[in-house]
Amino acid sequence: MPSYRAPVEDTLFLLNDVFGFHRYDNLAGFSDASPDVVEAVLNEGAKLAETVLAPLNAVGDREGCKRHPDGSVTTPTGFKAAYDAYAQGGWMGLSLPEAYGGQGLPHTLNCAIQEFASSANLALGMYPGLTQGAMAALLVHGSDAQKQTYLPRMAEGAWTGTMNLTEPHCGTDLGLLKTKAVPNGDGSYSLTGTKIFISAGEHDMAENIIHLVIARIEGAPAGTKGISLFVVPKVLVNADGSLGARNGVSCGSLEHKMGIHGNSTCVMNYDGATGWLVGQENRGLNAMFVMMNEARLAVGIQGLGQSEVAYQNAVAYAKDRLQGRSLTGVKAPEKAADPIIVHPDVRRTLMGIRAFNEAGRALILWTALQADIGHRSDDEAQRRAAEDHMGLMTPVVKGVLTDKGFDNAVAAQQMFGGHGYIEEWGMSQFVRDARIAMIYEGANGIQAMDLIGRKLPKDGGRAMMAFLGEVQTFVKDHGEDEAMTPFTAPLQAGLNDLQAATMWFMQNAFSKPDNAGAGATDYMHLLGLVAMGYMWGRIAKAAIAAKASAPERMEAKLVTGRFYMERILPETAMRLVRIKAGSETTMALPVEAF
Amino acid sequence: MPSYRAPVEDTLFLLNDVFGFHRYDNLAGFSDASPDVVEAVLNEGAKLAETVLAPLNAVGDREGCKRHPDGSVTTPTGFKAAYDAYAQGGWMGLSLPEAYGGQGLPHTLNCAIQEFASSANLALGMYPGLTQGAMAALLVHGSDAQKQTYLPRMAEGAWTGTMNLTEPHCGTDLGLLKTKAVPNGDGSYSLTGTKIFISAGEHDMAENIIHLVIARIEGAPAGTKGISLFVVPKVLVNADGSLGARNGVSCGSLEHKMGIHGNSTCVMNYDGATGWLVGQENRGLNAMFVMMNEARLAVGIQGLGQSEVAYQNAVAYAKDRLQGRSLTGVKAPEKAADPIIVHPDVRRTLMGIRAFNEAGRALILWTALQADIGHRSDDEAQRRAAEDHMGLMTPVVKGVLTDKGFDNAVAAQQMFGGHGYIEEWGMSQFVRDARIAMIYEGANGIQAMDLIGRKLPKDGGRAMMAFLGEVQTFVKDHGEDEAMTPFTAPLQAGLNDLQAATMWFMQNAFSKPDNAGAGATDYMHLLGLVAMGYMWGRIAKAAIAAKASAPERMEAKLVTGRFYMERILPETAMRLVRIKAGSETTMALPVEAF
Repeated sequence: MPSYRAPVEDTLFLLNDVFGFHRYDNLAGFSDASPDVVEAVLNEGAKLAETVLAPLNAVGDREGCKRHPDGSVTTPTGFKAAYDAYAQGGWMGLSLPEAYGGQGLPHTLNCAIQEFASSANLALGMYPGLTQGAMAALLVHGSDAQKQTYLPRMAEGAWTGTMNLTEPHCGTDLGLLKTKAVPNGDGSYSLTGTKIFISAGEHDMAENIIHLVIARIEGAPAGTKGISLFVVPKVLVNADGSLGARNGVSCGSLEHKMGIHGNSTCVMNYDGATGWLVGQENRGLNAMFVMMNEARLAVGIQGLGQSEVAYQNAVAYAKDRLQGRSLTGVKAPEKAADPIIVHPDVRRTLMGIRAFNEAGRALILWTALQADIGHRSDDEAQRRAAEDHMGLMTPVVKGVLTDKGFDNAVAAQQMFGGHGYIEEWGMSQFVRDARIAMIYEGANGIQAMDLIGRKLPKDGGRAMMAFLGEVQTFVKDHGEDEAMTPFTAPLQAGLNDLQAATMWFMQNAFSKPDNAGAGATDYMHLLGLVAMGYMWGRIAKAAIAAKASAPERMEAKLVTGRFYMERILPETAMRLVRIKAGSETTMALPVEAF
Repeated sequence: MPSYRAPVEDTLFLLNDVFGFHRYDNLAGFSDASPDVVEAVLNEGAKLAETVLAPLNAVGDREGCKRHPDGSVTTPTGFKAAYDAYAQGGWMGLSLPEAYGGQGLPHTLNCAIQEFASSANLALGMYPGLTQGAMAALLVHGSDAQKQTYLPRMAEGAWTGTMNLTEPHCGTDLGLLKTKAVPNGDGSYSLTGTKIFISAGEHDMAENIIHLVIARIEGAPAGTKGISLFVVPKVLVNADGSLGARNGVSCGSLEHKMGIHGNSTCVMNYDGATGWLVGQENRGLNAMFVMMNEARLAVGIQGLGQSEVAYQNAVAYAKDRLQGRSLTGVKAPEKAADPIIVHPDVRRTLMGIRAFNEAGRALILWTALQADIGHRSDDEAQRRAAEDHMGLMTPVVKGVLTDKGFDNAVAAQQMFGGHGYIEEWGMSQFVRDARIAMIYEGANGIQAMDLIGRKLPKDGGRAMMAFLGEVQTFVKDHGEDEAMTPFTAPLQAGLNDLQAATMWFMQNAFSKPDNAGAGATDYMHLLGLVAMGYMWGRIAKAAIAAKASAPERMEAKLVTGRFYMERILPETAMRLVRIKAGSETTMALPVEAF
């Protein structure tokens, strides 16, 4: 039976020592997040994750969700009670403005809690997770009346939210969507169509479900320029806020998935369902992007979350399982064999996951902090820089943390030998659950294309130049410090590879767009490697400074960081070689040759 | 619904054009394998795989096996009939000597058929697969009476075989085994103990199951020096060959696994079961190694098999699924969008899998051919060289082809977007099934340790020196040929990395064994990359020679080979960097720090 312990101590170290969280007291909500409040919030979140969510993880996997003939859906045993505990703890509205019933705390804290929930129970955590995404879109693009109608009930957890984008023939290419919206003449629309892969589309946890749905208004232009966003409640809401009649939207079936069995993934049928426009006509994609950026960061967190919980269980097993003897002499003479953690190949695996997890957590908190600055700063230049950062790093957080998070779950499972393949041990579930994060909210290839096609060239490459400059400055500032050399020297090498790759695209991709497409995924990983290398540089700096107060913990940080620098970061060179190979052999074969 | 088409054409090209199969006519059985016989065998095997085994793949996954209260096990619908077809086709004894009812054909052909069966239905293919492993051990170490008793019935498929090694506390470290064998005084032994993870341990396909079991004879030395191998039939065999009483061995339960649901993975209870010694007392591991080498090659084939079938289905989907437009202009103006195979990131993925599959298939057939030479040649030097090759490449075939085969199944699944995560599409099953191949028959970390700890230093490094010399000679012989330069130049770079890594271990691992352990997995992959690069060199040479007769197919070979050289082989440099990092940061943390 797998276990989970939330990394509160590491999160506090990152917030306080690495990122100087309290230097941002001037931002709205940050002054309420005093050090003791932050610690209390994290500890409470940890308790919820460890004692309420985690024990239901295997239950959800085993039982799955059940759809009944009337279209209603039952979630696994215990899920509703756990969701109630989540909602009653005020977690849903943690960073929502107080005006709508939230607590107005920094989104950064919310992201830390999302990690805990994702590790503990990914499928369960998605119900509130999607609600937060829907709230974000309503908050930015909804009318005042819509915000007043929906947000307070969602913030308290009485109602949940969904995102309805995908249709059977239309995934990445939203321009192909067919769901139709016909004006009813009273300001509302009548929506008809089929949406698929709708997470938390129907369930028994909340009294209402607020669907955000993209559709094409009758007569709107074809393609993505004719897409509008609608809010479609499962149960219509009366003027006084009470619940009225059932709307014309229902769950047609549940998908039979590889993992996240505890989440109800629905085919949703809209049969003349009543909806209201959110934001402007035909500008639905803009509104959707708010939700998607929020969701993409959250999905990156899920990748980290599965990597972390898989790591913790692999460590426990490696300390416990006796098999073989150490290459350097018997370590546990009183036992029939040594615990397998003595074996270098086992250590290599564990260190690799750990080095990723700690840097990945830093990357998420750093990026979440930029999101807070982007939303809450009064300083326009600071806000713009933060938004640049968010735009650049969102596809990296989503794409790299989920790719590597999955790989790490697989590597952790491998530590169990044959037991890893047996469902009762729980490692298979981590792998199966982690797999979805590479796919949804834009498959990782799409993240790579977003990075290279949109984020990189935007504003003349301003965001990328800023990132390269920041890392270069860090290396320069600390390159003379002998204690930092094991970090700054490899970081410079990685940075050089990233600069060379960026330059190569500037010279070779405008004239030949296939070169961009063929190198996109490698570039996304190259940027991720350097960004996490930079995180290790900053962690190392903080660890050296804090060494006196926590010598063993800080020494472990420094060793783990050096492992990253020696064994993981050098992958940048391989990525660069692949990018520079261009697209010739990639694209040379005629389609018939496949 | 996934589909499968066996790569007969590619297999024939490899056998005939690349490896000159018919140059080995002097080996026993090879003269019977005339070109038309080989082609007929492959076509028949393809037919069986495509029409009998493949249609049951999803059925087996969905239904799984069922154990009944009396300990009997029912396999999924249709499995028994398919197994009968397999047995009646004579496939079980394809390369077994004719004296025992086999056809005496080269094992190389057997391996080609194993690939087809593994792609079509891994879980089903394991029943005959394990039987072949058990037959191999009996053939080498069994007494004449044992061979006469068991082999003919196994060759015809009336009886199947198993390997019983693992116990709950004892996987890799077989020295810990507890199953006891007590002499009965009549030459037989009474075996008592529990074995776990026994594939095909109990089922309804055959009238008897011949278990090969390792156990410790009462009073034998502790550790691996006190392990003996026994043959324990499920039903005792009378002197006249007819079936007698039920033996004291039974299936205690079935494991609930991540994949290969169609194979019955059993906990086997031995309660005073009657068994007979195979080979010498306390020399059971030697006998077991015969089975294991056979099985490890077979498991490498499974890795390739899942990669191949996943690739085929990803290609079909990529040609069919319409989404987005090509970066270089609309390709299918008559359709709402272009098929996704026009997108470079999709192509990159497909080309990467394809480049692996074709070289992996070559590596397997080349290694299988060496196995045939090792077993059948009259020339001692030739036999010794072949055995060296087999020993060196077995862990590489097992470890690298299953690691990469799994990665490729995941990459192929990714092409499907959300549909890849839905069980009905079948891609999830390929991933879940492929996962086991990295674990069983020695987890891949063990393969790496076997390579670096045993195979590399054996006989003063003779096998490795021979491999390095062979590849170097190839590069020298063809380096002047302009058409071959795109292959020989990168191959030389990869070879240099492999030589440098080998040298590094010679200088740094004897004094510090942790350096070997920390670099073992990277070394295994480094050798695999170079071995497959060498395969591409040889394929390229043959493709250039055959270009006139099949210009499009050979041109596709050359493009795919160049893709490998440009984008996959350069990974050797990263592997070398990791190896040279040594074990310091890997081993520095105290156990308590985890």
